[in-house]
Amino acid sequence: MDIKGIAEEVCKKTGVETTGRDVEKVLSGLTSSSHFWEVVCTAREPFSVVAEVVEVLKRTRLVKVDEQGDIYFTPEGMKFLKSRGITPRKDYTCPACEGRGIGLEKLKELVQKFDEVTADRPKAIIDYDQGFVTTRTVVSRIALMADRGDLEGKKLLVLGDDDLVSIAAGLSGMPAEVVVMEIDDRLVEYINDKATKLGLPVKAIKYDFREKLPDEYVGYFDTFTTDPPETLEALEVCMGRGLTGLSGEGCAGYFGLTRTEASLKKWNLFQQMLVDKFKVAITDIIDDFNHYVNWDYLLGSIRDDYSFVQVKPRLNWYRSSMYRIETLSGFKGMENKSMPCELYIDQEALIYRPGQM
Amino acid sequence: MDIKGIAEEVCKKTGVETTGRDVEKVLSGLTSSSHFWEVVCTAREPFSVVAEVVEVLKRTRLVKVDEQGDIYFTPEGMKFLKSRGITPRKDYTCPACEGRGIGLEKLKELVQKFDEVTADRPKAIIDYDQGFVTTRTVVSRIALMADRGDLEGKKLLVLGDDDLVSIAAGLSGMPAEVVVMEIDDRLVEYINDKATKLGLPVKAIKYDFREKLPDEYVGYFDTFTTDPPETLEALEVCMGRGLTGLSGEGCAGYFGLTRTEASLKKWNLFQQMLVDKFKVAITDIIDDFNHYVNWDYLLGSIRDDYSFVQVKPRLNWYRSSMYRIETLSGFKGMENKSMPCELYIDQEALIYRPGQM
Repeated sequence: MDIKGIAEEVCKKTGVETTGRDVEKVLSGLTSSSHFWEVVCTAREPFSVVAEVVEVLKRTRLVKVDEQGDIYFTPEGMKFLKSRGITPRKDYTCPACEGRGIGLEKLKELVQKFDEVTADRPKAIIDYDQGFVTTRTVVSRIALMADRGDLEGKKLLVLGDDDLVSIAAGLSGMPAEVVVMEIDDRLVEYINDKATKLGLPVKAIKYDFREKLPDEYVGYFDTFTTDPPETLEALEVCMGRGLTGLSGEGCAGYFGLTRTEASLKKWNLFQQMLVDKFKVAITDIIDDFNHYVNWDYLLGSIRDDYSFVQVKPRLNWYRSSMYRIETLSGFKGMENKSMPCELYIDQEALIYRPGQM
Repeated sequence: MDIKGIAEEVCKKTGVETTGRDVEKVLSGLTSSSHFWEVVCTAREPFSVVAEVVEVLKRTRLVKVDEQGDIYFTPEGMKFLKSRGITPRKDYTCPACEGRGIGLEKLKELVQKFDEVTADRPKAIIDYDQGFVTTRTVVSRIALMADRGDLEGKKLLVLGDDDLVSIAAGLSGMPAEVVVMEIDDRLVEYINDKATKLGLPVKAIKYDFREKLPDEYVGYFDTFTTDPPETLEALEVCMGRGLTGLSGEGCAGYFGLTRTEASLKKWNLFQQMLVDKFKVAITDIIDDFNHYVNWDYLLGSIRDDYSFVQVKPRLNWYRSSMYRIETLSGFKGMENKSMPCELYIDQEALIYRPGQM
């Protein structure tokens, strides 16, 4: 079977458009690592695509999977790679900033303080697809917003905050006001507790973003940040809420988008939505900016039919790109009314839910 | 006059949409630096907007300009800043990678070799709006393309190459083939000379991108890189040519876009073109990736009515964001025919050409 054939089979199985180049990226990832989750991380391809490529390679005996679930090329596989000119992935990520372009030298204290203050944070739970980012990530988000003039003296909306960005922002001393809207009662309580104890200008309220934004917060903020679920519907509602919260043109929004749960086809459709419908400019897309701490419920929540997938991750493999958008004159939020939408279930999702495919 | 008033006046004078936040960014830049070009660099605003904001501030005696052209707030200006809550810009750029996210530790030899080999490079000339990037920038571009799997073993099209990316790519030993299409005879000859002497898989041909792509190169390449003029017309033709050169889905294009010569309004229109018309996904936008070496003809080519503008730059102030785009199934290039278009003249351009405004 050639690369194009693999792509076609994967596309048929997953329902996700897959090109020969996509398959090449998985192959290239596999030449550098035998660990499934590392390949998902470096290939920048949807989870289901990586899994199916490996499965096809296994079935055609180009790779074999050992008892620990590690994946190795067979001699035949090696010949295949060579004849197709597949080489190991080159990695030129800046080690100082983990590729974010943001230096934390001036924020060492904030890093330390955030770790201390949040040592007793609530665990990530599956109910809301939670999974929080590393401390370096959260402080880098603060630095990025500050660097772009979107934090100091500004009013910040945090839409969903298992990452505890609000606490980091409060501790930085920069924003005038931070409002968290969060569906999880545990987090609302936790954030409000910390804010009171530490005297931070942070307030959390319970909110489901499928409901309308509280009236007093329409057009109230300078900046929003969020980490949206990645169905197109959820992305649209989430962006709509964030933008509806902003006070006018020249305001900014920050959010993550993965390659693991969103194909580039979805990226394109989402980008059309941003620039056509919402009339914002995308000013930054920073690859692998957000690194997530591995969460406990992963292996119980995903497909269990492939042995190489049911392996405990040996790195913080789940990453996302950081988007910054800026509003222009004539930018649009959305009508402020409740909007039911599908949050989690689509072909590209990581978590397997019965009836999904 | 308040900030909104300044924005309105600047908008009227420049024809460039300007928000209160845009004015704030210039003010914030001016609190950290008295040097016009540094403010242009850090404010991330169109050149003409920065110049007009400073002029309004000068006229209303919020700043004064000294004999060297340095800009200082007056006591009245300081009060103005304080009352509006304007604070100095925070800078969290990673010093190790200058914010690119790309580490050059593994490419030290390439950096050195590129400098040696190109020591006798042609000077930037005004005829084609030239101005080339620093060595760190050019090698970072090589690293970025390699990191994303778009360089090793691939066929690379370089559309316009005063940056000498082709030579750096050739010296890296990674690409299978590099073709430069360049309008400037001096560069065509220079690149071909070096390629022959050094035995690089690089070939330069004379080409004006307003002409159709040579037939043998339609659908030939895996990757293109270019540094387009920033009128919308030129951006469209330049992207069209690059994409027409690519062999299919899953291929990539790289190019720079400034905030100095392109407002976010233009960014939005250009992004609409990319995602709607050309059907590509934007995978990366890396702020300030490209740093340009100051060019000799700057002060002679720009407006000479403001003394603070006619000042020799004290830093490599001209920067651009690096875009990476990836083609999807059904992506479109353009009809392969000649296409006259306006390259340089629009309201947001840096170089002043008679009859421009």
